[in-house]
Amino acid sequence: MDRNVLTTGPQVRAACRSGELTGQTSGLASGYAQANLVVLPQDWAAEFLLFCQRNPKPCPLLDVTEPDDPVPRIAAPHADLRTDLPRYRVWRDGELIDEPTDVRSVWREDLVAFVIGCSFTFEAALVRAGVPVRHIELGTNVPMFRTDIACRPAGRFHGPLVVSMRPLRPADAIRAIEITSRYPAVHGAPVHVGLPEQIGIGDLSRPDYGDAVPVAADELPVFWACGVTPQAALAQARPAFAITHSPGCMFVTDVLDETLGL
Amino acid sequence: MDRNVLTTGPQVRAACRSGELTGQTSGLASGYAQANLVVLPQDWAAEFLLFCQRNPKPCPLLDVTEPDDPVPRIAAPHADLRTDLPRYRVWRDGELIDEPTDVRSVWREDLVAFVIGCSFTFEAALVRAGVPVRHIELGTNVPMFRTDIACRPAGRFHGPLVVSMRPLRPADAIRAIEITSRYPAVHGAPVHVGLPEQIGIGDLSRPDYGDAVPVAADELPVFWACGVTPQAALAQARPAFAITHSPGCMFVTDVLDETLGL
Repeated sequence: MDRNVLTTGPQVRAACRSGELTGQTSGLASGYAQANLVVLPQDWAAEFLLFCQRNPKPCPLLDVTEPDDPVPRIAAPHADLRTDLPRYRVWRDGELIDEPTDVRSVWREDLVAFVIGCSFTFEAALVRAGVPVRHIELGTNVPMFRTDIACRPAGRFHGPLVVSMRPLRPADAIRAIEITSRYPAVHGAPVHVGLPEQIGIGDLSRPDYGDAVPVAADELPVFWACGVTPQAALAQARPAFAITHSPGCMFVTDVLDETLGL
Repeated sequence: MDRNVLTTGPQVRAACRSGELTGQTSGLASGYAQANLVVLPQDWAAEFLLFCQRNPKPCPLLDVTEPDDPVPRIAAPHADLRTDLPRYRVWRDGELIDEPTDVRSVWREDLVAFVIGCSFTFEAALVRAGVPVRHIELGTNVPMFRTDIACRPAGRFHGPLVVSMRPLRPADAIRAIEITSRYPAVHGAPVHVGLPEQIGIGDLSRPDYGDAVPVAADELPVFWACGVTPQAALAQARPAFAITHSPGCMFVTDVLDETLGL
């Protein structure tokens, strides 16, 4: 599969649907917002919606479907969430049971899908502004940490705020705060800067998810709320059934990054 | 003089003109933008204007008068800059020669006045947003430091960037960056956060101007470009003649703080 031809949301989704694309979406369809996916039965969906409403920085909702409608009518009205991601994870009672490239066979009438904004959008804005993003330069995954900040619980959903970390020189950190403030639909401004122990992070070289990156003496670690937060809440709630995207295999929407910027 | 009756720009200026108000303007005419004043002969004014243009964060111009016109027609069209500040400083060849409450006797046909935005405006916005401002709580002057960052020179004007410092907890620092970004006309977003030695500041307890404030272990020092910067450039350039406001005795404009917010 020539990744260079996948320059729009519809193109990426078509390649997923045809089975040509089964891996990571990072770098594809530049300018199109990518999203996290969480799919839950209706009897869990209302509580999860409330969890997202109460924790908008880690869980910024771009779209929520009607029960049994696999079409995200706001984020990509011609998409089918059952086929249009490269790879999924299927969960039963909190256990990962499968990682298929298509979930039509396990789809059910009572499922509701949540399309949740992703940091790729604000990272693109940072790069355009000349703010260096370390893990992109290194070609690794962003380092993520569980904090000791509790999310506001909702029903059976609760858990820690998970944050992603980007090391920046102070002037770049200020500029990054300004820029990401303009993108509340994709986590918005950072939640912390400079004193990681204050949010329960003891060792920056040992992230809970993703890959460690070096932090230079003239840099501050800057922390953004992260879309892994709802995954952590899901892992604790252990719903009877759930579908999520497979890490890095995001849903590419029709929404242009710039339409999410204030 | 009952300071409580001075609730608008025109009221403060009238009290200056009548000689009733000869001291600091902090806390007066809440909601009205206060400003730094620099007055120079025309043969120095063009270079100073260029200095401000090249260094907008420390020198945000709210108004520049025509030669021999003591009226700031944009910032306060009914004011007279020769009488409407509580107290002035008069400089000859870089030496302070007088601190009068009225400069009509030394006014000259060739003088140009620069009205430069002041941090009071963004501090009011911080306080309204519940961001604690240490030196206001302590009732002291903000601590200010000369950095090792050079301003962009213009003609005979050059010098270090001077910054004011406010200690904030990280989440408040992020919020303060967001808020002050909306006020580019009054210094805008900070220029530095967290690593003072990186900008040539060795000891936070020994400010170059103003009063020291404590910085707690869970706080970051946050640094904004400061209106003392043009004063420092003036001190180095030693123009043949200059008038400035006396420290703390600002020019209160007709401009509402909120009209300066983006």
